Amino acid sequence: MRWQLLIPRERAATTSWLALLLAMLLLAGCATTQVGDPLPSWNEGPTKAAIVKLIEDTTRPGSPDFVPPAERIATFDNDGTLWSEHPMYVEVVFTLDRIKALAGQNPSWRTEMPFKAVIDNDQAALAKLGEEDFFKLIAATHTGVTSTEFQKAAADWLAVARHPRFDRLYTELVYQPMLEVLAYFRANGYKSFIVSGGTLNFMRSFAEKAYGIPPEQVIGTSFDAKFTFENGVALVKAEPRLMLLDDGPGKGVGIDHFIGRIPIASFGNSDGDLAMLQTATNSPGSKARKRLAAIVWHTDAAREYAYDRNTHVGRLSQGLDLAPKLGWTLIDMKNDWKVVFPFEKSEK
Amino acid sequence: MRWQLLIPRERAATTSWLALLLAMLLLAGCATTQVGDPLPSWNEGPTKAAIVKLIEDTTRPGSPDFVPPAERIATFDNDGTLWSEHPMYVEVVFTLDRIKALAGQNPSWRTEMPFKAVIDNDQAALAKLGEEDFFKLIAATHTGVTSTEFQKAAADWLAVARHPRFDRLYTELVYQPMLEVLAYFRANGYKSFIVSGGTLNFMRSFAEKAYGIPPEQVIGTSFDAKFTFENGVALVKAEPRLMLLDDGPGKGVGIDHFIGRIPIASFGNSDGDLAMLQTATNSPGSKARKRLAAIVWHTDAAREYAYDRNTHVGRLSQGLDLAPKLGWTLIDMKNDWKVVFPFEKSEK
Repeated sequence: MRWQLLIPRERAATTSWLALLLAMLLLAGCATTQVGDPLPSWNEGPTKAAIVKLIEDTTRPGSPDFVPPAERIATFDNDGTLWSEHPMYVEVVFTLDRIKALAGQNPSWRTEMPFKAVIDNDQAALAKLGEEDFFKLIAATHTGVTSTEFQKAAADWLAVARHPRFDRLYTELVYQPMLEVLAYFRANGYKSFIVSGGTLNFMRSFAEKAYGIPPEQVIGTSFDAKFTFENGVALVKAEPRLMLLDDGPGKGVGIDHFIGRIPIASFGNSDGDLAMLQTATNSPGSKARKRLAAIVWHTDAAREYAYDRNTHVGRLSQGLDLAPKLGWTLIDMKNDWKVVFPFEKSEK
Repeated sequence: MRWQLLIPRERAATTSWLALLLAMLLLAGCATTQVGDPLPSWNEGPTKAAIVKLIEDTTRPGSPDFVPPAERIATFDNDGTLWSEHPMYVEVVFTLDRIKALAGQNPSWRTEMPFKAVIDNDQAALAKLGEEDFFKLIAATHTGVTSTEFQKAAADWLAVARHPRFDRLYTELVYQPMLEVLAYFRANGYKSFIVSGGTLNFMRSFAEKAYGIPPEQVIGTSFDAKFTFENGVALVKAEPRLMLLDDGPGKGVGIDHFIGRIPIASFGNSDGDLAMLQTATNSPGSKARKRLAAIVWHTDAAREYAYDRNTHVGRLSQGLDLAPKLGWTLIDMKNDWKVVFPFEKSEK
């Protein structure tokens, strides 16, 4: 922005109302102040207080826990932390739908496992699929294409696919209180990264619009890829080999590779996030003293879902045991959140 | 920053001098305007004009080539583009020195190739080393340690090692005109990434201080790594397997993975940068019409080095042939740059 163009230089010194107007304009454009409650969808209590205190202690000049802006990094898991992951991870639902959509172009799939099980909706066969089968489904739907092509397929699907219980687009099932946390961190000079087990390109297809997180701040499971330059066109196409499995311990590796700094705050919801939370709170070599690790605990069967130790989707067991020992914050959805989804606000 | 704290609310409406002062303060803190010549170390001519025109056309509101701030991405190779790479890549010199420094802890190296050749300074044996030998040297010096440990070793070395010809620290041999380009892009809302064949952690050990580029905007060759959490400490240690070879075609892959957007401008200097430059100027799927790809052409034997087709270090041959065909800008060091290194300015 070229603010200088807005000042008629010869008049600025004498035209005080203009200076005042300008000051107000600049405040609106530049300041990162928060007016009123930055977390209106959070009930008052120790959880909300812990988040507010982290921001205040790390951004107040002169605070012993002050963190220079360049080091203000926060990381967020996606599934179950920023949006709903039950009854099934959204990217898994997408993958199964995509197999069906691509079946016409791949006639051999009609007789070939694991594709046949998906196309036939054969629940018994689907239940028996192993890790290798699942990788075949992922590779068939996620590789051999450019990031742009894949993201278009994902975005087209997200524009129409609906959640089986809520009958809403999946992007409507983001958590309103977490959107407020993202905005609050951003307003206080934090750079937020998604660190998810989902793939890089699936998340990049909606993260900027849904969360305001740009593609270069998305870390996810990724595939090796091949660069070609043919007929004057540069293309990068994914290959069916994993480059980074950004889940569990891989989240620690992903943070080291993509960010290269220890996050000041980290939000997860399952045991797949332990490495990320441990990285935030228990790494050597970072100067900042104050940290926050928080776990979104799904305790609200009425408004969303209630699950922790007894689920295969977003299981939280070790995390519940570790949280009190390591001083992590448990976000109790039922008691800490006034609303879960953005659409509840307009319905009130 | 909490500007609101600076305004005594009850007085602001009437105290015009305060408003004016505030406006000036805010301009100083927030505006991205450039006062005077943004590229003072560049001679006037088509090269400088091309860079200035790119910035003006992509940032002027209403311009047909306007690029929204979020999409303003520029990529820069490091060796030979931001600092000197002759007579030998700095990281190679570091690696050989590091082998010698670690020899005491690894007595078997005294009789084991390729380590023996390095420790003995055996030029004939060194000249015969192949790619596999070199990878052994890299793995022995770059893996088995955390990023923090490695970066400390690199920073300690960079604090004392001197260039054989200039007798300067390597970090003094950054190119002053390119520092100005980095600052000019930054001041105009561009986010700049290093995209280098050098390793992630070697560059992260100096990039923030030398170039103002934070760790999360450094892309480099990287190793797979292992996360552990033992005795309450989270550690990520590099393993001797490449995750990304960020050179040649790998630079296209690195941009796709780490950035996920097509750069608007890209600066390189050797055939190892072709994929990066092709990505910038010839990718499908980007809406921005205007692009800049530029090659730092080492034409100045007096002030730095003169080399292109006939060198093994930073060879530029295909790039010289492609540049006119693809409309790439050649930066002629000898004729385009008033000074090469920052220290020349103070000597003038």
